[in-house]
Amino acid sequence: MRITILGGGGFLGKKLAARLARDGSLGGKPITGLTLFDLAAPPAPSAPFPVQCLGGDVADPAAVAAAIPAGTEVVFHLAAVVSAAAEADYDLGMKVNLNGTLAVLQACRALGTKPRVIFTSSVASFGGGQDAVVPDDGRQVPTNSYGAQKAIGELLLQDATRKGFLDAVSIRLPTVMVRPGRPNKAASSFVSAILREPLLGLSTDCPVPPEFAVWICSPRSAMEWFLHAATMDTSAMGIDRGINPPGRSATVAKMLGALEAVAGHAAREKVGFVFDKEVFDIVVGWPAAFEAERARRLGFAEQESLEDLVRAFIEDDLAATKAERGL
Amino acid sequence: MRITILGGGGFLGKKLAARLARDGSLGGKPITGLTLFDLAAPPAPSAPFPVQCLGGDVADPAAVAAAIPAGTEVVFHLAAVVSAAAEADYDLGMKVNLNGTLAVLQACRALGTKPRVIFTSSVASFGGGQDAVVPDDGRQVPTNSYGAQKAIGELLLQDATRKGFLDAVSIRLPTVMVRPGRPNKAASSFVSAILREPLLGLSTDCPVPPEFAVWICSPRSAMEWFLHAATMDTSAMGIDRGINPPGRSATVAKMLGALEAVAGHAAREKVGFVFDKEVFDIVVGWPAAFEAERARRLGFAEQESLEDLVRAFIEDDLAATKAERGL
Ligand SMILES: NC(=O)c1ccc[n+]([C@@H]2O[C@H](COP(=O)([O-])OP(=O)(O)OC[C@H]3O[C@@H](n4cnc5c(N)ncnc54)[C@H](O)[C@@H]3O)[C@@H](O)[C@H]2O)c1
Ligand SMILES: NC(=O)c1ccc[n+]([C@@H]2O[C@H](COP(=O)([O-])OP(=O)(O)OC[C@H]3O[C@@H](n4cnc5c(N)ncnc54)[C@H](O)[C@@H]3O)[C@@H](O)[C@H]2O)c1
Repeated sequence: MRITILGGGGFLGKKLAARLARDGSLGGKPITGLTLFDLAAPPAPSAPFPVQCLGGDVADPAAVAAAIPAGTEVVFHLAAVVSAAAEADYDLGMKVNLNGTLAVLQACRALGTKPRVIFTSSVASFGGGQDAVVPDDGRQVPTNSYGAQKAIGELLLQDATRKGFLDAVSIRLPTVMVRPGRPNKAASSFVSAILREPLLGLSTDCPVPPEFAVWICSPRSAMEWFLHAATMDTSAMGIDRGINPPGRSATVAKMLGALEAVAGHAAREKVGFVFDKEVFDIVVGWPAAFEAERARRLGFAEQESLEDLVRAFIEDDLAATKAERGL
Repeated sequence: MRITILGGGGFLGKKLAARLARDGSLGGKPITGLTLFDLAAPPAPSAPFPVQCLGGDVADPAAVAAAIPAGTEVVFHLAAVVSAAAEADYDLGMKVNLNGTLAVLQACRALGTKPRVIFTSSVASFGGGQDAVVPDDGRQVPTNSYGAQKAIGELLLQDATRKGFLDAVSIRLPTVMVRPGRPNKAASSFVSAILREPLLGLSTDCPVPPEFAVWICSPRSAMEWFLHAATMDTSAMGIDRGINPPGRSATVAKMLGALEAVAGHAAREKVGFVFDKEVFDIVVGWPAAFEAERARRLGFAEQESLEDLVRAFIEDDLAATKAERGL
């Protein structure tokens, strides 16, 4: 089976490529080729199958078509301009998040073989804020351009599925933590920073108060969801191709509690609270909890505990992050 | 005040232009200019203000920019490829309904003066079917490309409103009846035909059974909603710029009862039932009833009775339809 990862050089794209390389197969079928596509050609993991690494713009239809060659059975569409960046530059967000998804749609349609497309939508496509518990049929009223562009992408891919052009599953990812590397332009960057920076021995400011709740998941369960979405029987989904997966609702205080339990009081003490209105104004609109019953019924896996989530970061990513940041 | 109607040559666009010409003002402010834009330059109504008539493609940004000159305070965006046509030709629907709305967004944004934009979305943007009573926060899961494109248009204009580029109100129109003229490519064409054709003395086939229910409104109340949406205080809407207006849920049998009450048994007898699976498969997905409480609270007017709706067609449109069709 041939697979393409668009955004294959990003946080989740790199992890997914490594996972596929390790597994060598997907859904019991051997992988015969993997294409990684990102603005700059991503590094190839060592794998038991050929890996092609391409640089290009996901908003460029020809570049995307080249990244989805004939015979591609599964496309992971992860390429995106993230929340704060799409809010700061409306035109860039529209170009990458809207035109990019249109280019993916057309490239898949041109194959004529209905590839499975896994699209990473976001909790940010919902409004509702701190008090909401979003039901499975909850309406998406985004409070930011990134969320609007993600909701639009879902509608495009859902309709393309109905038309028989492709076979989409859109996973509305929670905030994935702990993200390795450096703080980034996502408004939710702090959610990872408050665990990652102390584990690196660094101090960090949390821009929201301790009682602020966030809908989160771990990179490990994001990977499980991606693989499940790529291999599940989609006929059970009917026309509605959007999934609210079973993340976890956690307050900043709870996360810091898990940090302290795993890494001790000194780590916990590295986090100060400095309110940042710009960040707060974006993330305060995102709902902090979901029902996610439909996803459970469709076989999407549950989260590990917060403590295990912290431990997983230490196991999977701490050394590489230290090396990357020269620490 | 300067006003533009995109799709000004269509059923509702022509009625709206005539209404504005008659009123001479909108929301108490004298109209100083009206631009009508459609594929072919629409006919100008006789009006107490200058009327500019332009032909062009709403998917052509330059043409749309020319149709929305500096100083435009209100834009009615009615230009669209309707349901069955957008289903039959996916690319045409995407071009007109998606790229067209993007061109409208950019032209309004370029003004820098936040014009009010009234966008005609549709009941077809919802799924749910015959048994649904759609709540005000009902999720849009379209079962057709037209509905998906309308839902996307709403998201685009809602986000553009939040960004301060324009000030949008999207009205999810019920099936507007009685439509004058000839049957058209809308899957809902029969809803008007079963009243109009008998009033013209013609026989017609109804493609769905008598107990089939439809969410409808009259052209007169569509006009009231358009004018209200153009002049209302939108701050009460908050971020959610979509409106489910107070239409009426009516079965085919009820509509034919109203026809008989107004025009007699002979008129009723002109309607036969010949099931059409292609039409049925599109319209069966549309919900037949809505709560519409939010719209009532926001001042959107109720429907007249079905009998009055039939009488309004006779008063407003029967003679012109007869003339147009050489009857
Ligand atoms: N990480 C999270 O918490 C989270 C939460 C919700 C949704 N998501 C979504 O999941 C996906 C992956 O997230 P991530 O955390 O790996 O993000 P990331 O920013 O690390 O990766 C996104 C990748 O897209 C690439 N990209 C951006 N513009 C591009 C363009 N024009 N052409 C080609 N590639 C382009 C970037 O270079 C980057 O490598 C994204 O779609 C994101 O919106 C992530
Ligand atoms: N009439 C209804 O029952 C109903 C119900 C729900 C929503 N709506 C929406 O209300 C609006 C008006 O409906 P209507 O019944 O007057 O439809 P209509 O088809 O009579 O009018 C639409 C107009 O758009 C024009 N148009 C199509 N493609 C164009 C293009 N590329 N460039 C410029 N103009 C173009 C057509 O020429 C037509 O005059 C539409 O947006 C429709 O989708 C109508």
